[in-house]
Amino acid sequence: MAKRKMILDLDTGIDDAMAIAYAVGAPDVDLIGIMSSYGNVVVEQAAHNSLQILALLGATDVPVFVGEPHSSTTEHFDVMAISQQIHGKNGIGEVDLPAPKRQPEAQSAVDFLIDAAHQYGADLTLVPTGPLTNLAAALKKAPEIANEIGNVTIMGGALTVPGNVSHYAEANINQDAEAANAVFTSALNLTMVGLDVTLRTLLTKHETGQWRDLKTTAGEKFADIVDYYIAAYDVTSPDLHGCALHDPLAVGVALDPSFVTTLGLNMYVQDSGEDYGRTIGDPARLADPETNVTVALTVDKDRYLKTFMSYLTTLFKQN
Amino acid sequence: MAKRKMILDLDTGIDDAMAIAYAVGAPDVDLIGIMSSYGNVVVEQAAHNSLQILALLGATDVPVFVGEPHSSTTEHFDVMAISQQIHGKNGIGEVDLPAPKRQPEAQSAVDFLIDAAHQYGADLTLVPTGPLTNLAAALKKAPEIANEIGNVTIMGGALTVPGNVSHYAEANINQDAEAANAVFTSALNLTMVGLDVTLRTLLTKHETGQWRDLKTTAGEKFADIVDYYIAAYDVTSPDLHGCALHDPLAVGVALDPSFVTTLGLNMYVQDSGEDYGRTIGDPARLADPETNVTVALTVDKDRYLKTFMSYLTTLFKQN
Repeated sequence: MAKRKMILDLDTGIDDAMAIAYAVGAPDVDLIGIMSSYGNVVVEQAAHNSLQILALLGATDVPVFVGEPHSSTTEHFDVMAISQQIHGKNGIGEVDLPAPKRQPEAQSAVDFLIDAAHQYGADLTLVPTGPLTNLAAALKKAPEIANEIGNVTIMGGALTVPGNVSHYAEANINQDAEAANAVFTSALNLTMVGLDVTLRTLLTKHETGQWRDLKTTAGEKFADIVDYYIAAYDVTSPDLHGCALHDPLAVGVALDPSFVTTLGLNMYVQDSGEDYGRTIGDPARLADPETNVTVALTVDKDRYLKTFMSYLTTLFKQN
Repeated sequence: MAKRKMILDLDTGIDDAMAIAYAVGAPDVDLIGIMSSYGNVVVEQAAHNSLQILALLGATDVPVFVGEPHSSTTEHFDVMAISQQIHGKNGIGEVDLPAPKRQPEAQSAVDFLIDAAHQYGADLTLVPTGPLTNLAAALKKAPEIANEIGNVTIMGGALTVPGNVSHYAEANINQDAEAANAVFTSALNLTMVGLDVTLRTLLTKHETGQWRDLKTTAGEKFADIVDYYIAAYDVTSPDLHGCALHDPLAVGVALDPSFVTTLGLNMYVQDSGEDYGRTIGDPARLADPETNVTVALTVDKDRYLKTFMSYLTTLFKQN
């Protein structure tokens, strides 16, 4: 099977950890690196968590690169209280994992992405599941990559439902709407996997129980980590009856777009005012025959969940 | 051909006038009545304008019923300056038409709708292209009609693009978001033809020139009326390069849903705060297998415009 070159850009976080597991477990992925971002945790913690999760999954061959420490318009980043509530202070549900033997790479995440775009071009798939600060910085430094990278599938935004940090803004976009707007209005071939579909794609303790029953280290640790997330969702989003598979759904859609139905739309991201962070169609470009953003609207959640469980369970069995 | 029983609910208005012409010209419509609403003009003027347009089109057999004079939460209605700018103070582009011979009916629009729903049930299609105040009042008075009326296709709302009276609200919904929310969250089989598609469906002086060239009264008067609207759009929305066929598109979609691609979504209308009037998906009902709102997302504008021009030109030739 021809494997897809994939880079993840993660603020690792619990659903980011599941995104790593999905990418490591998918048979058609060559995970060439993980960039780290601030968001659910600070950027150094995100890199540390990615290395821990990779080690837990036996994927110590994957390099991790540290990204931008804060948004393009600020000088500092503090983790929000709600992020700590959902992901735990360490970002992985207060679960202890061994210190990673591998260190983050010396090269910056931004330079790694630019080099990979030049090297792999259309064969490269980038999946950012945190703020779009790293990608916007790379576009600014090397604008040509917008026409090189095959596909960018983000977890972020909300088109047909309200945001989750305001009525308008989804959390990842809200961290840096200016960067997000630069990405959305670029020439990138962009797929938006937003709250529209991730809130439809839920995991429950029924599934984490299956991991726990494997009696492997990876199965038990992942069950502990994700159960923390499910418990947080029970408090913050009791209507949902489960936790949303935000980040791993983006990886799934990047590999198999047929999991979702989509709308092609030229969009912008509101970067000022009350609706800061809103991802919305641009009326002035509605008539353009070409659209650069493909927005996921509905999802075949049963088929996705089956694939998700197949990949993760197989992986956890071996680790 | 079996004709569809149709009721229009209009704040007549220039694009409302085109909606009347589409319904009168469509071979598969039995236009059983027009309700009038406030919005582009006051409710009495809307009824007067509908009667004038019907007379211009030789459709004096269609009764007109006067609806609610203001929103469900106010005691008074004044036409907005922007409405007068777009539609003219008389609502039909300052064009003079003969005083109508027929008067509005004595029965209220709300009671007419309730009676028609009881009589025709699933055979009835309602197309409101103004505020949803009349429909909400009918639902309040006779809740059973939500399960009787075959389909309600509204012109109103905006899901994938910003509103046109605020970043969030489309003008019709903005007039009475409380009424709109009652309609959106009812059991009605609702199709939303909003700015998402109407801003994609434009008419230019090229088309009105074809009407003028017919040298008939209806052709020339409609060309005068719609040229006023196109000139207003040139000022308010110069990006569009034409006027939006808001209301007649709703009639077209009600008759032929294949003009649009759609998303089934359970929605609500925000009825307080900064985003008053926003039409948006309800995260708590995303997982419901049934959806009651069908939102138009894209439109085959070329095929629609061809149908629109065929119906209106044929009608104008005869009048």
